[in-house]
Amino acid sequence: MTKSDKQAVVLLSGGLDSATTLAVARAEGYRCHALSFDYGQRHRCELAAAARVAERLGAASHRVVSLGIGELGGSALTDPAIDVPRAPTSGIPVTYVPARNTVFLAVALGQAEVLGASDLFVGVNAVDYSGYPDCRPAFIAAFEQLANLATRAGVEGRPFRVHAPLIELSKAAIIRRGHELGVDYGLTVSCYDPDAEGRACGVCDSCRLRAAGFREAGVPDPTIYQ
Amino acid sequence: MTKSDKQAVVLLSGGLDSATTLAVARAEGYRCHALSFDYGQRHRCELAAAARVAERLGAASHRVVSLGIGELGGSALTDPAIDVPRAPTSGIPVTYVPARNTVFLAVALGQAEVLGASDLFVGVNAVDYSGYPDCRPAFIAAFEQLANLATRAGVEGRPFRVHAPLIELSKAAIIRRGHELGVDYGLTVSCYDPDAEGRACGVCDSCRLRAAGFREAGVPDPTIYQ
Repeated sequence: MTKSDKQAVVLLSGGLDSATTLAVARAEGYRCHALSFDYGQRHRCELAAAARVAERLGAASHRVVSLGIGELGGSALTDPAIDVPRAPTSGIPVTYVPARNTVFLAVALGQAEVLGASDLFVGVNAVDYSGYPDCRPAFIAAFEQLANLATRAGVEGRPFRVHAPLIELSKAAIIRRGHELGVDYGLTVSCYDPDAEGRACGVCDSCRLRAAGFREAGVPDPTIYQ
Repeated sequence: MTKSDKQAVVLLSGGLDSATTLAVARAEGYRCHALSFDYGQRHRCELAAAARVAERLGAASHRVVSLGIGELGGSALTDPAIDVPRAPTSGIPVTYVPARNTVFLAVALGQAEVLGASDLFVGVNAVDYSGYPDCRPAFIAAFEQLANLATRAGVEGRPFRVHAPLIELSKAAIIRRGHELGVDYGLTVSCYDPDAEGRACGVCDSCRLRAAGFREAGVPDPTIYQ
């Protein structure tokens, strides 16, 4: 198999982590199909960011799939009645969207099976992260096992691999890696609660982790704040 | 915990198997939240069937979630360019929707977490079935394991159980069980390719399995054919 034959589906939110993940997958020689979701998130400007990132980083395709999971409620990211916290909280935060990564990876698995791709890339991170349960290595390993029981390809002996190349990196290490790979972080949106122009709030959990990461990495922060 | 405190999310397609599953869950004392999906399936009249079944069998709620997975292609159930086979085929058939049950269970898991329900019911069957990989016991067991790594409830020690009460029953045994529980199968739609009035084609894989099941069960078949 030549490098260009290797196909991957890459989950792309439009944020810092997934942009870096796409750059890593490209650097590893994969032909990358980027996949984003419109699930009623309040930070929908990230979908425009995802399109910019997919184009700039040379994705072979970029698809946005609509998912009605926001209607299920239960998260500050999809329910206007629940505010995004503007200060640190303890435990699993209210920005957690129940089963989100399970749903996203499941759709990516279906897309991979249709395309004949055997590799999935996801930018989850279990170091400088928001404490979501579906960002941990054990979750990724369990999903890979499930994928090979769930699909035609798995049954027929063409196993899927789920890559989470950032999972054990600090935010600063992620930024340094992306910076080396030429990622323009000015294209990305991490904020959970941006304004209408896509400018970051600077105070949500995601903004705080991002800003601290740039400081620690010694890389100029291109984020535009409100 | 009293019986009425037991809450379950039940995947309800509007077909024979999922209607029976809902009846089983109700008989076991669960307060049932039925969940259906609008995913671009050509047999959308099953959504109307699901609504009828949910009401008749006393579901506490019924929600239809829109999922854009039909756009991913690759299945005769969602792609008008691929015909539904009208005679038996070998191997995994073209009606297989890649990763469908993984996606459906993932959304059910999110719904369960929002509702505080610990039980998921799914009407998959590995005996008289179409040969889909995501209908086998190993898949269900792997999903249950994933669910407990993916969620707040799993992390906090309130494990999920995934019930597949039909998984080892023949189609005739499923029909006898539902008949005992008072399921009106005249409300259900199993056909992969019904006409505009919801009448069954009688020749697709699903119709054949259903008709043979009624014959073997010795239960009158209420299906209306084209």
